[in-house]
Amino acid sequence: MIGQGFMGRAHSNAFHQVSHFFDLPFRLERKLLCGRNERELAATADTWGWAETSLDWESAVERPDIDVVDIAAPNDMHAPIAIRAAEAGKMVWCEKPLSLDAREGLRMADAARGVPNMVWYNYRRVPALAYAKQLVSEGRLGRVYHYRAAHLQQWGADTSRAGAWRFQPGVAGSGVSADLLSHVIDTALWINGPIREVCAERVTFVPERAVDDACILLARFENGSVGTLEASRFAVGCRNRSTVETHGSQGMLRFDLDAINDLEFLDATEPPEIQGLRRISVTGPNHPYADRFWRPGHALGFEHTFIAALADFLGALATGRDFHPNFDDALVVQQILDAAIRSAETGSWRAVSASGAAQ
Amino acid sequence: MIGQGFMGRAHSNAFHQVSHFFDLPFRLERKLLCGRNERELAATADTWGWAETSLDWESAVERPDIDVVDIAAPNDMHAPIAIRAAEAGKMVWCEKPLSLDAREGLRMADAARGVPNMVWYNYRRVPALAYAKQLVSEGRLGRVYHYRAAHLQQWGADTSRAGAWRFQPGVAGSGVSADLLSHVIDTALWINGPIREVCAERVTFVPERAVDDACILLARFENGSVGTLEASRFAVGCRNRSTVETHGSQGMLRFDLDAINDLEFLDATEPPEIQGLRRISVTGPNHPYADRFWRPGHALGFEHTFIAALADFLGALATGRDFHPNFDDALVVQQILDAAIRSAETGSWRAVSASGAAQ
Amino acid sequence: MIGQGFMGRAHSNAFHQVSHFFDLPFRLERKLLCGRNERELAATADTWGWAETSLDWESAVERPDIDVVDIAAPNDMHAPIAIRAAEAGKMVWCEKPLSLDAREGLRMADAARGVPNMVWYNYRRVPALAYAKQLVSEGRLGRVYHYRAAHLQQWGADTSRAGAWRFQPGVAGSGVSADLLSHVIDTALWINGPIREVCAERVTFVPERAVDDACILLARFENGSVGTLEASRFAVGCRNRSTVETHGSQGMLRFDLDAINDLEFLDATEPPEIQGLRRISVTGPNHPYADRFWRPGHALGFEHTFIAALADFLGALATGRDFHPNFDDALVVQQILDAAIRSAETGSWRAVSASGAAQ
Amino acid sequence: MIGQGFMGRAHSNAFHQVSHFFDLPFRLERKLLCGRNERELAATADTWGWAETSLDWESAVERPDIDVVDIAAPNDMHAPIAIRAAEAGKMVWCEKPLSLDAREGLRMADAARGVPNMVWYNYRRVPALAYAKQLVSEGRLGRVYHYRAAHLQQWGADTSRAGAWRFQPGVAGSGVSADLLSHVIDTALWINGPIREVCAERVTFVPERAVDDACILLARFENGSVGTLEASRFAVGCRNRSTVETHGSQGMLRFDLDAINDLEFLDATEPPEIQGLRRISVTGPNHPYADRFWRPGHALGFEHTFIAALADFLGALATGRDFHPNFDDALVVQQILDAAIRSAETGSWRAVSASGAAQ
Repeated sequence: MIGQGFMGRAHSNAFHQVSHFFDLPFRLERKLLCGRNERELAATADTWGWAETSLDWESAVERPDIDVVDIAAPNDMHAPIAIRAAEAGKMVWCEKPLSLDAREGLRMADAARGVPNMVWYNYRRVPALAYAKQLVSEGRLGRVYHYRAAHLQQWGADTSRAGAWRFQPGVAGSGVSADLLSHVIDTALWINGPIREVCAERVTFVPERAVDDACILLARFENGSVGTLEASRFAVGCRNRSTVETHGSQGMLRFDLDAINDLEFLDATEPPEIQGLRRISVTGPNHPYADRFWRPGHALGFEHTFIAALADFLGALATGRDFHPNFDDALVVQQILDAAIRSAETGSWRAVSASGAAQ
Repeated sequence: MIGQGFMGRAHSNAFHQVSHFFDLPFRLERKLLCGRNERELAATADTWGWAETSLDWESAVERPDIDVVDIAAPNDMHAPIAIRAAEAGKMVWCEKPLSLDAREGLRMADAARGVPNMVWYNYRRVPALAYAKQLVSEGRLGRVYHYRAAHLQQWGADTSRAGAWRFQPGVAGSGVSADLLSHVIDTALWINGPIREVCAERVTFVPERAVDDACILLARFENGSVGTLEASRFAVGCRNRSTVETHGSQGMLRFDLDAINDLEFLDATEPPEIQGLRRISVTGPNHPYADRFWRPGHALGFEHTFIAALADFLGALATGRDFHPNFDDALVVQQILDAAIRSAETGSWRAVSASGAAQ
Repeated sequence: MIGQGFMGRAHSNAFHQVSHFFDLPFRLERKLLCGRNERELAATADTWGWAETSLDWESAVERPDIDVVDIAAPNDMHAPIAIRAAEAGKMVWCEKPLSLDAREGLRMADAARGVPNMVWYNYRRVPALAYAKQLVSEGRLGRVYHYRAAHLQQWGADTSRAGAWRFQPGVAGSGVSADLLSHVIDTALWINGPIREVCAERVTFVPERAVDDACILLARFENGSVGTLEASRFAVGCRNRSTVETHGSQGMLRFDLDAINDLEFLDATEPPEIQGLRRISVTGPNHPYADRFWRPGHALGFEHTFIAALADFLGALATGRDFHPNFDDALVVQQILDAAIRSAETGSWRAVSASGAAQ
Repeated sequence: MIGQGFMGRAHSNAFHQVSHFFDLPFRLERKLLCGRNERELAATADTWGWAETSLDWESAVERPDIDVVDIAAPNDMHAPIAIRAAEAGKMVWCEKPLSLDAREGLRMADAARGVPNMVWYNYRRVPALAYAKQLVSEGRLGRVYHYRAAHLQQWGADTSRAGAWRFQPGVAGSGVSADLLSHVIDTALWINGPIREVCAERVTFVPERAVDDACILLARFENGSVGTLEASRFAVGCRNRSTVETHGSQGMLRFDLDAINDLEFLDATEPPEIQGLRRISVTGPNHPYADRFWRPGHALGFEHTFIAALADFLGALATGRDFHPNFDDALVVQQILDAAIRSAETGSWRAVSASGAAQ
């Protein structure tokens, strides 16, 4: 694994926990942890049980005793590492967003075509969102009219964090678009299908800042629905709120990451007097992942999304099934981000030049 | 009408509004307003269109041009006025609680047997509670196991209101029991049926105070369910919160007066994965009173409960149907309050000596 | 009053109720009710106490014994009636939206300049929204970054209502934009100040329909904030939900019409560990209109917004203060709607050609 | 560790995870897993990395290479194992409830006096409840008037689970009282202090069942407050809901396990117009355990309560501080349960014969 920050911890935790909750034919060994700061590296490796550490990712990705390269480094390192690793025949797992832009993403997707790969859009494994996806797939919403989503954080105004790499365009690509809007887009594509066109507003509230602080898209989906996709680091009052709301001819769904275990659903095919938005605790029975962790009614948290993603990847690997989201899926997110950026520059709608369909 | 305080306004408003929203064969004339303070009386009469005022209720209740006596005076005046009015052959409408105790209540119920009568337990006409009653009556809860209700206010700690008549036992009967627990009990009887036995805890937090500040009942219902019924004036944080929660073999209901237009319902006969507490906006279509006021989705408030109670009374009067809650129903509430007081004195369970079944 | 539909009832109710709750130097007489259907007219007049009825609004608006003309007729009648009434020197009260388009609205505003006038954007008198406005005015949000609002209904898909005048462009102007987005815009201007530019997406989900079923705006406000303003009749699951959400450097506000008495507020100047979105029951004490209706903790509903608007108008009239929203304010809404329509046609941002500042 | 069921997994997980999130001077080794079913034992040991397994707990608890005995076996095994282990000088960790009754609990507490010990009342380590405790300790509620708590499950009506050991009085002690009410009581003692007297209602809804399905206590606390403490397995609609609500002279707190990361707080010392129940996401900053797991805004779940309890125990062990809840604390819970049972038998209030004060 390359990277030892917040995401490095989340991945390390998943590597530990996956075998506790899932029956898998693989046993993960935590071989080698790469990073830039030797002292922190040693501490992280000690805490999380990595056998070795290294400051040199380039030789690491070619070691014959390594089967998987997991990238939890800043965004600008995704492409060089992923391409090198894929060329060395390694499986590649990459933090989101895939790349700095769609062109770079395309090179990565091309390079990775021959190896099993995954992008850590972990919110697809929130059980409540996976259940939302299931309900939509079963046709419980009917024809979809509206899709509305926002990922809202507030730390953008905190000047003490001005030096973070997420504010450097060369490292991060863009600001909140790369960081949070990418999640919003990935979830939207997964639940509501392809996006044809977008119109975007991007704002930087702090004048000297080189990346966007907020970005709002109007989106036209292929299924005829319209929506807004929003992300902000200036949504004061929201630490990490991420909402999805969608209305179809037969019902409505609502999700809020602040209540990560719940999904709200209204069934418009029932008699009108009994209709209401019901709050479903998506902790089982019969819910995604519910038989894997604890019991119905027992809350899961943030980290379980990484464990479940990893388990799904390994399960797909074992059985030869496709896994999503992979590099191709994440490339579509980059294409939409590129369209959004161009839309914001020109003040007009932009078509999404999809190279292929995300899943 | 006798009384010109807060409840006098609520009643006056109902007299004005009932014909705007309900088709009724009666036309209410606001003849005479009685009270104790001449200046306030004149002002209230002017605002609300009462033709005359009087300081003398005793001659008022015998006037031949008066058909209905409405009592919105303090609790100790309910019995003398109601009995005299009933004896004069008038219809009688009485604010809750019916009486200072069950013995007095029995005299009132006996006196009123020959005349149409009503007690203003107005919360029965909250559309969401009326719909809850309907769902229970339709068997949507199955066999009921639990009933839990509380009416919570916070003004008891406000020493500026120490002189209020509600703190004088001779005028109010008891404190929060007469004032708020009576509502809780009436709603419980109506929705969940007769109570067999109670065990009560009554508390007076302010030492010099002669009435109870809080009262909590354990209750055994005839249908085999158990419950807690609570009222407090020291529930800091709650201006006027009143909750009902009940679980049966086939579902659950929840109501909170702070969201007066909503009822929460869980249907346990559905597949478990789709079950959730649904929030129903009880503003139509097909809900109680929904075709009478505004449109589905348009909120009603506190005052509509009085208008709807009055309309139901007049509708029953026109068609010869029974109306509830009447004096007999309210008498049962008094009997349970008496049992609660005795239970609190003895520290043990007390049977409710029901003279008859409330409806 | 001209018009006898749903809004005619809401206005009639306000005329009755205003003197019950507000001390005013005026006494409203319900002189003359105009409409198109003689039988319905008679029934409405009887229910609501109108002295006369007429099918001929043109002579009505010039009667010397009439001081105020209140327009609750379909949108295409607003201009002819309002202009004629203003020219006859009458005060004019007009349902929203002001007009079919901004050009017509400008003629109306010009005509009405000499007479006291009001537009029934009643949601400004929701106590919780009035309190939101107050908190913003007091600077409790600091510099505003985001404003997000949506008015969502679901009846658009109901084919039984296809003949309604709201679906006829010649009568309604536009569809959901005229009907609901106008409310959203008025509230946004009032709470968050002028809008400089908009970019709009308008959708008609039912092919044969000539008006918009949904409209979403991206908006740039003069205060530097950005936002989305949305309205839909295809938001299945929402009978009449209207939400406002705004984030500033010092806090956050959230409102939902489904909980009409509540306002949510987060104070970001508090220590971070104690911060949370607090749910304020805006029923007093010290809240807008709280001393006028019932007591703290007692819910108000839809109709009270009309009563309070009327009271504010009459209070302003008595004291010579300005009243808002008036025709000039409502004209700005029309200008934004026009910009939205042109934006949707061209697929690009449009400046709002403000004739003046709304208040 | 002895026991391999649901709680065995929760404990095993904690043993793995504690070192990933907490800096501790101890390193836990998972030596020996005891149970009754050899095949399941082997599987559990393999999944969770236990070095050995055994069917014979009696010799296990005396092995010199074992420092800690962790008891996750059914309730009737707690006493024999704990006493033997304590006598062998081992540290003892015991699942709740401590014992079958208070007499047995007293023997256990006596035996364990010389060794560090812990009872897994894990809900004390829900960050939101730990923060509630902190606010109460800081005096943010003032004088407490009311405490109201309920732990509600629904599986009691599920006949397919009739054979579970939790329905056997000899194994479980009592039914829902031992299982869930014990949690409610422990949390109440911890947050609101000692209980002087209780009055209980216990119900068995299924006639042939030998344990209680629901139990409700009226409780008088030493601080002068009154409350209800309730537990049920027949609260249809609630998978694992556990609520706490308390009102004091200066504020109100509310918690619901269904929203495990949130605490609601109302500060009644603020101006009345701005007061409201605020929803605090207790995920940091400055919250209990917030610097240990993920970042502010990132949800924790059920399992983290065990990890945090274990970390606190080990931290206390390292520094010589007292740890709570220990056997003495859990004994007080048993004494209250005994008083409740006797109260239900006699239909009257019972004093709690506290051997000492819980903490």
